[in-house]
Amino acid sequence: MKSLQEKILKEGSVSGSDILKVDSFLNHQIDIRFLNEIGKEFKERFKEDKVDKILTIEASGIGIASIASQYFENVPVVFAKKVESKNLDKEVYETKVYSFTKGKEYTVRVSKKYLNKGENILVVDDFLANGRAVLGLNNIINQSGANLVGVGIVIEKGFQEGRKVLEDEGIRVESLAIVESIQDGKVVFK
Amino acid sequence: MKSLQEKILKEGSVSGSDILKVDSFLNHQIDIRFLNEIGKEFKERFKEDKVDKILTIEASGIGIASIASQYFENVPVVFAKKVESKNLDKEVYETKVYSFTKGKEYTVRVSKKYLNKGENILVVDDFLANGRAVLGLNNIINQSGANLVGVGIVIEKGFQEGRKVLEDEGIRVESLAIVESIQDGKVVFK
Repeated sequence: MKSLQEKILKEGSVSGSDILKVDSFLNHQIDIRFLNEIGKEFKERFKEDKVDKILTIEASGIGIASIASQYFENVPVVFAKKVESKNLDKEVYETKVYSFTKGKEYTVRVSKKYLNKGENILVVDDFLANGRAVLGLNNIINQSGANLVGVGIVIEKGFQEGRKVLEDEGIRVESLAIVESIQDGKVVFK
Repeated sequence: MKSLQEKILKEGSVSGSDILKVDSFLNHQIDIRFLNEIGKEFKERFKEDKVDKILTIEASGIGIASIASQYFENVPVVFAKKVESKNLDKEVYETKVYSFTKGKEYTVRVSKKYLNKGENILVVDDFLANGRAVLGLNNIINQSGANLVGVGIVIEKGFQEGRKVLEDEGIRVESLAIVESIQDGKVVFK
């Protein structure tokens, strides 16, 4: 997605050889007009597929999933929760996910009420790096008996193992921008 | 907002005298079509006001703010972050917020880059109960020199102190549904 690559080059900032920050439009401040372009592109990538629901994970995925839903006939969005909360239903699917960014394991939960057997689920998220979050969501989808249609990622870190990890599980990955490397403070796309 | 009251009566569930769960459409599964109705209504309530940016807090506020932005000429959405993250800019406004739901204090942060002096900020959130989260956001807005236009709340717990706490600070509160009490497992609206 050309406009996304341009946006990353214009507004993104890098540090070291593996951190790309896109806080200005994707995961702290959100550019809603641009998110609509992203939603349209996800629809284009998955236009041949039946999608009954979009699943994402808090927090950065929520805005992306919500806007994208509008291009999928407003299918419900479900966001997996990362922390224990009094108000979450006790009847949940859960799995453990290791976060390399935070250096710790956390629990991811989805209420059993909101994933049903036979439903076709599109997973979306802002970044794909090690693939652990998506693997966790796939685990939860499998527990529910729903089908994972595929994964829509805004920015894939092509130099990390996420795509391989997911494709080895037979998961289809559609990334709108793939960063091949970060060299001398510059983003190189695949 | 009549349709919201109906939705709460139809899909919400209560426990005890103070917990109302609206997981099926607002803060776990999200009904995007309905969120559009909510966004329209926020615009109606704030149609006389200049809004440059919408500020919310992760996680449940993000979908609401993202869809609402589309009725405010796609102004940027900024979501305050609740946890320390490696990737968040070090130049942040921050404040402490006590969560009655979780029984602990947490830190709320917004990068200094995304709130600017003189900007007109609309705060939105899913629930208003004790008002501590919004007070925290107001504190952050004050630090930045931006102006708080008002607060748009989807569901206000009218039997808790949130509105008084905020109005005592001179903050305008617009709630789309006000729950007066929860009695014998039933929601009573104001």
